[in-house]
Amino acid sequence: MGRVTARRKVLRIRDGVVDQRPDTLAAEEPMEIRVGGRALTITMRTPGDDFDLAVGFLVSEGVVRAAGDVVAARYCAGATDDGSNTYNVVDVALDPSLPPLDVSLERNFYTTSSCGLCGKASLDAVRTASTWSVADDPLRLTPALLSALPERLREAQRVFDRTGGLHAAALFSATGELVVVREDVGRHNAVDKVVGHAVRNGLLPLRESILMVSGRASFELVQKAVMAGIPALAAVSAPSSLAADLAEENGMTLVGFLRGASMNVYAGADRVLLDD
Amino acid sequence: MGRVTARRKVLRIRDGVVDQRPDTLAAEEPMEIRVGGRALTITMRTPGDDFDLAVGFLVSEGVVRAAGDVVAARYCAGATDDGSNTYNVVDVALDPSLPPLDVSLERNFYTTSSCGLCGKASLDAVRTASTWSVADDPLRLTPALLSALPERLREAQRVFDRTGGLHAAALFSATGELVVVREDVGRHNAVDKVVGHAVRNGLLPLRESILMVSGRASFELVQKAVMAGIPALAAVSAPSSLAADLAEENGMTLVGFLRGASMNVYAGADRVLLDD
Repeated sequence: MGRVTARRKVLRIRDGVVDQRPDTLAAEEPMEIRVGGRALTITMRTPGDDFDLAVGFLVSEGVVRAAGDVVAARYCAGATDDGSNTYNVVDVALDPSLPPLDVSLERNFYTTSSCGLCGKASLDAVRTASTWSVADDPLRLTPALLSALPERLREAQRVFDRTGGLHAAALFSATGELVVVREDVGRHNAVDKVVGHAVRNGLLPLRESILMVSGRASFELVQKAVMAGIPALAAVSAPSSLAADLAEENGMTLVGFLRGASMNVYAGADRVLLDD
Repeated sequence: MGRVTARRKVLRIRDGVVDQRPDTLAAEEPMEIRVGGRALTITMRTPGDDFDLAVGFLVSEGVVRAAGDVVAARYCAGATDDGSNTYNVVDVALDPSLPPLDVSLERNFYTTSSCGLCGKASLDAVRTASTWSVADDPLRLTPALLSALPERLREAQRVFDRTGGLHAAALFSATGELVVVREDVGRHNAVDKVVGHAVRNGLLPLRESILMVSGRASFELVQKAVMAGIPALAAVSAPSSLAADLAEENGMTLVGFLRGASMNVYAGADRVLLDD
């Protein structure tokens, strides 16, 4: 975990007072994801939980659906000229009985530190077909349960929160128990790490669970939640128009601006139990 | 500009009080960028300034360097089955005397709403070679000048700031005058729109200028600034480790946590004039 942060000397200016001191920065490094030895994508990420990140990314893209789909994940040597292991290249071996990767998909795959949208050739294809439906998920939520989540997320990330530069994503049970939390310079990576952890532990589809993110809710985060079978997404900040549209289309509950006892429900409000 | 925001009915919960009312959301739609009719990438963006976005993206990737490199930019019809114009596909025609697009680049191009890193095959290639050097740029900054920028950015974006869901990027002159400001659901798109505006107005390289962003400073934002010849990047929030490394490598000034009279200088501190 040593590379999750980096120390660096900075010039601090505070109301005209200048000093120089070491500061802690969120680490950011490129990671290449390979499947069966073939390079698929590069993402800028915070090192740590790299296998979860790779496998979670493949869930989001509809390639992996269960723990058994992944035979192995390992770091590759040889990414540099001298053959040393940078721990920045992860190769995932899939169950050979799975259909081979779609070449058109492979060519256009992309991901970055904040987004996991797959760059398929056509605009129509930005919506990846999910294996699971979340519309019929029996999860029910109360405002009181939702209100407790941001503080639980903050508590869980406090250890890492020295840099001010990390996004967090956490999975909660239907009763608000924290299942797993992950942090990354990219919010999409944080979600991929949560989903990757879940699939590798045989937890997909993540029925009756809530995904909570520290920032905004984009189209792509809603899509990642749908692909993992998660029926509710809660965000500290604003959703985009397309995030709300996609959540509604899929019967997912989307909560935004979740801060203390305040929140907006943008889609799937029927899952939120109100007093009267 | 009608599509910059979208109205949507939301369920508002405030300390147990529930009401339903329309809310304004930041619009997010996919945009495909084509060069000479060939699809290059899809980005999730807020509609508006789409030609600037497409051209700015091509500057970041080292394809476009001057206004004359772009012969035309237009919306394509035919992206949908019925052939209607969605205004979500932009085709850029380049000067035919330019070298043809590198196919390996084309295959691996990607961008998303928050990132513009080009997914080249090798990890070494994440650093795009810039036409311009910013190390010798004569720009000098004072803490007083830097302190004034966040408020000027906020003033300029106030008109659009109804959603809480938009990132902003602004270009300032050496004396702190606002040149251009752009907003988008993706911070990388906001920067591409600023750079695209500049190149289409013959302003590249953007010597003696400052790029200010409303969020964090990632590796890719530093790279975009370098590719446009901008010698200073200031961010309201934290930089990542690799952002600071790349800025230092290129002789760029990187300021983070710029809030009122407080700021941290992570690289290129020699450009900041202190009182003693």
